[in-house]
Amino acid sequence: MLEEVALAAGGERWESAREMMITDDRLVLKRPLDMHLHLRDGEMLELVAVESARQFAGAVIMPNLVPPVTTLEMLRAYEARILAACGKWGAGFRPLMTMFFKDYSEAELEAARPYLFAVKLYPHGVTTNSESGIHSVRAAEPVLRRMEALGIPLLVHGETGGFVMDREVEFLPVYEWLATTFPRLRIVMEHITTAAAVAMLDRYENLHATVTPHHLVITLDDVAGGLLQPHLFCKPIAKRPEDRDALLAAALAAHPKLMMGSDSAPHPRHAKESCGCAAGVWSAPVLLPRLAELFERHGALGRLQAFVSDNAVRVHGLEVPDREVVLERKPWVVPARWEGPGGDPCVVPWEAGRELAWRVAGE
Amino acid sequence: MLEEVALAAGGERWESAREMMITDDRLVLKRPLDMHLHLRDGEMLELVAVESARQFAGAVIMPNLVPPVTTLEMLRAYEARILAACGKWGAGFRPLMTMFFKDYSEAELEAARPYLFAVKLYPHGVTTNSESGIHSVRAAEPVLRRMEALGIPLLVHGETGGFVMDREVEFLPVYEWLATTFPRLRIVMEHITTAAAVAMLDRYENLHATVTPHHLVITLDDVAGGLLQPHLFCKPIAKRPEDRDALLAAALAAHPKLMMGSDSAPHPRHAKESCGCAAGVWSAPVLLPRLAELFERHGALGRLQAFVSDNAVRVHGLEVPDREVVLERKPWVVPARWEGPGGDPCVVPWEAGRELAWRVAGE
Repeated sequence: MLEEVALAAGGERWESAREMMITDDRLVLKRPLDMHLHLRDGEMLELVAVESARQFAGAVIMPNLVPPVTTLEMLRAYEARILAACGKWGAGFRPLMTMFFKDYSEAELEAARPYLFAVKLYPHGVTTNSESGIHSVRAAEPVLRRMEALGIPLLVHGETGGFVMDREVEFLPVYEWLATTFPRLRIVMEHITTAAAVAMLDRYENLHATVTPHHLVITLDDVAGGLLQPHLFCKPIAKRPEDRDALLAAALAAHPKLMMGSDSAPHPRHAKESCGCAAGVWSAPVLLPRLAELFERHGALGRLQAFVSDNAVRVHGLEVPDREVVLERKPWVVPARWEGPGGDPCVVPWEAGRELAWRVAGE
Repeated sequence: MLEEVALAAGGERWESAREMMITDDRLVLKRPLDMHLHLRDGEMLELVAVESARQFAGAVIMPNLVPPVTTLEMLRAYEARILAACGKWGAGFRPLMTMFFKDYSEAELEAARPYLFAVKLYPHGVTTNSESGIHSVRAAEPVLRRMEALGIPLLVHGETGGFVMDREVEFLPVYEWLATTFPRLRIVMEHITTAAAVAMLDRYENLHATVTPHHLVITLDDVAGGLLQPHLFCKPIAKRPEDRDALLAAALAAHPKLMMGSDSAPHPRHAKESCGCAAGVWSAPVLLPRLAELFERHGALGRLQAFVSDNAVRVHGLEVPDREVVLERKPWVVPARWEGPGGDPCVVPWEAGRELAWRVAGE
């Protein structure tokens, strides 16, 4: 059985690319993109970067290093380290670089623009390495005006400092204020986790979202409903079943404003399985196989191309390597851990020990 | 300053005991009771039992061993092991023994009655070692009738198999059914965690509750709002701030149907700081000092006696050793861990590393 699936979402430029080859045992994705990725630095970068580079034509690289990426020099140097860490896969992988939100001047933004995909805004202290985040979104108005004028997208970690299950919903009025105050600013609600955030997509033309594969699958029950599972602990925390269902429905429908952003975030195993466990799910090694399985189970495999690429390309007008990634139906068991030289660092992936039906060809 | 605090809650028999000696640096509690305690068995029992025995005149001992306590012989043998593990404190400590709910005959219940405080009911699979729990509360009607006739209290772990934040509230209709179907059965909602459960106390005369000190203090934010804290992970999981506030208000008011039951539940450190972390907070070593601090901060020290003893004595008509436990205002830092011989088992207590203002005298 061979299908040619023409997807519904609009846009002219990418029309020809929005066709996807699916056979019973082969699936070809065109320039898949991970629109939210943590690669860290140093030995961790060396260990994890290749997992993204072999699956994706590009990825939006989060700037929350210590210290965060806030200058063009830091950005270019980090980009070079990333490409070096990707090895042979680097040629087909474009890091879409971001800078950590701060009060950038127009000159700084203009200089950075050719190398900069977007600026990432973290409210203060809500997630890993966000201690430099801002305390008031409204105080950020001047730089947001500059970004709007220059066409630089704003990526937002949208959580308040409130009760953990309410943080995203409490933040939604900030998105509304941003969307209406800066009508030409392209805003991305990063890693949304609630039905309420999904509903926002249809309310404001300039509001878009990424969603992680794990938030399409898990709820708080998977984190803390049985034994506590530190490797599923992330920020924003997984929410209620009705939230997960709304996210999944939007992804399976290839909602044109929703993009796959894994928020894959490696932490050393000892930092996850410990007294104070760091937030983050390291999903990078399993992303496309796990998504293929999920979309196939729901009879939506034909819409995977839009979710993992076309929507992002259209929303952002992206130029990325025109690369095909082939998935084969050959079951494999996700290894229990990935280790650097001498066992350090050691990272446990999402779905460790689980058998997945699809794999990236050539592995 | 010396106060004699006469407490408001009713009851004649214990009138004289419901006075409490408080000075600036000394606090005398009469026969404090822990109405919900896990002591485990073997080496763990040897390590932890003394922590309860030196602070309390008695404790309700949970029967969820492997296999669970379901016969009089098992009960008596476990009681003997507990008293042996209490060492010199055993003389002033009465284990109030329970059996795991099953379809006991009238003869079994009658034979056990002199040695049995209550029967503990676990819905199937909701907590540690509850695999033998029952699948339908209504199927338990015959044995509940027998318990009602014999005056044996029913202790219930009231959670459904639903979404983790909803499990207790979803179970409340079962409590309503129990309270109205067995109007003379004394029912205790164990370790309540929600405002809705607090409200149930005033609705049914035969419905009582225990609450843990940690649920008076923490919310899900403390477990998963910052770094993930496995040592605060327990079942039922800590809920929302408004739930915690309702529990605390009822405890500080010494609600006459609310009793302190710590649900102190030791797990080896390696089972807590691992990939699938077991549920349970080991609070035993800090219970009375931590409660004194909490009640004092809220100006309710005079009601601590009712919360940690008088309410339970009155509700259940208990006979326990007439022992005084003295707390002194001498700050101490809670040790990071308790260890058996050779470091095994190793258990991390609640509030490890925190300075507490009060300590049990003679330590």
